[in-house]
Amino acid sequence: MPLKLNENIPDIVIGRLPLYLRALTYLQQEGHEVTSSHELGQRLGISSAQIRKDLSHFGGFGKQGTGYQIPYLIHKLQDVLQVNRIWPVAVVGAGNLGSAIAHYRGFEERGFRVCWLFDADPRRIGQQVDSFIVQPISELQATLSGSNCQVGMIAVPADRAQEVADLLVGAGVRAILNYAPININVPPGVLVQYIDPVVHLQHMSFYLRASDE
Amino acid sequence: MPLKLNENIPDIVIGRLPLYLRALTYLQQEGHEVTSSHELGQRLGISSAQIRKDLSHFGGFGKQGTGYQIPYLIHKLQDVLQVNRIWPVAVVGAGNLGSAIAHYRGFEERGFRVCWLFDADPRRIGQQVDSFIVQPISELQATLSGSNCQVGMIAVPADRAQEVADLLVGAGVRAILNYAPININVPPGVLVQYIDPVVHLQHMSFYLRASDE
Repeated sequence: MPLKLNENIPDIVIGRLPLYLRALTYLQQEGHEVTSSHELGQRLGISSAQIRKDLSHFGGFGKQGTGYQIPYLIHKLQDVLQVNRIWPVAVVGAGNLGSAIAHYRGFEERGFRVCWLFDADPRRIGQQVDSFIVQPISELQATLSGSNCQVGMIAVPADRAQEVADLLVGAGVRAILNYAPININVPPGVLVQYIDPVVHLQHMSFYLRASDE
Repeated sequence: MPLKLNENIPDIVIGRLPLYLRALTYLQQEGHEVTSSHELGQRLGISSAQIRKDLSHFGGFGKQGTGYQIPYLIHKLQDVLQVNRIWPVAVVGAGNLGSAIAHYRGFEERGFRVCWLFDADPRRIGQQVDSFIVQPISELQATLSGSNCQVGMIAVPADRAQEVADLLVGAGVRAILNYAPININVPPGVLVQYIDPVVHLQHMSFYLRASDE
């Protein structure tokens, strides 16, 4: 049965699907074969009604009262999120953070593979980081333009993030994960997501204060 | 004028305040003294109406037609988020990610300071990482219990994250930033936020697929 994706699915629903996929994968690793929206919801802190409603956008994937077959639901969510393939990823910035990304082993089994590591610093260019030789950022466009690289990660200081984003977009990248703590501007059709730990910490410190008093 | 915080402010509003604070700080660094909800909105991809509504929870901070005084608004948001002080932070996991966190220079000016770095691996314990000596996780509770550490970061593999969370909570931590790609359970009153780059990548790959076809 082909997936019904013609309807407009809210972006906030799409954003929860990776959480469902991750929780299902752990359930499978723990030996479970069937789960319920209730069990998933307890793991994720999301209501079971919300989970059922989210999955109903894609046809439901389960029968009332019998729960979800975990391998089937994993397979379908991988289809929907298009991670039943491997997307090559370019990382820009080979400092501590970029190096940690290059060493990280958790991308590949979830649909992504770091294939290039670029930096502007002559002291880093040519160095080996994990299995990568750091390439000069001046060669980014030439290197990526011949590839089908659509995904990039920015791990450079905030004041260089916009120019790196421009380079990535110029090389055909259409999805950027930005670790630099600054908003970047990209043309329509290019996606950006942000990772800034301090934003999360400040979100929580609001509540810590209340209970100090 | 004291801040009005008695009303119940939606958590999603609190979550946007760190983004406003970050954008305002950059505007100030660029030499601006005054901004508008329109300008802030353009930087952040958030509507100006939303920004005005969010800030109105705290009394508004600006006069109709004259915009916001940036230093004043920064000061007020720092007050609200309680980052006009420094929260000491314990990091657990001194691998590539934990080391990158220990080296990161962007915490302190935004309200947080990494003060401890723990690991369970005897090969890492006692090693120097940035200005830290890696301490054994077996000493976490004794070390933190005498401190006023309320903030912890988890940078260990997924299968160790829950026990590390339990240790942190036992030592008095009430806000956890979890980099391990798994949901953790904590008692009521303890906050958890998550950083998992693959969740962001999978969110974007959904849309990449659509335009491949």
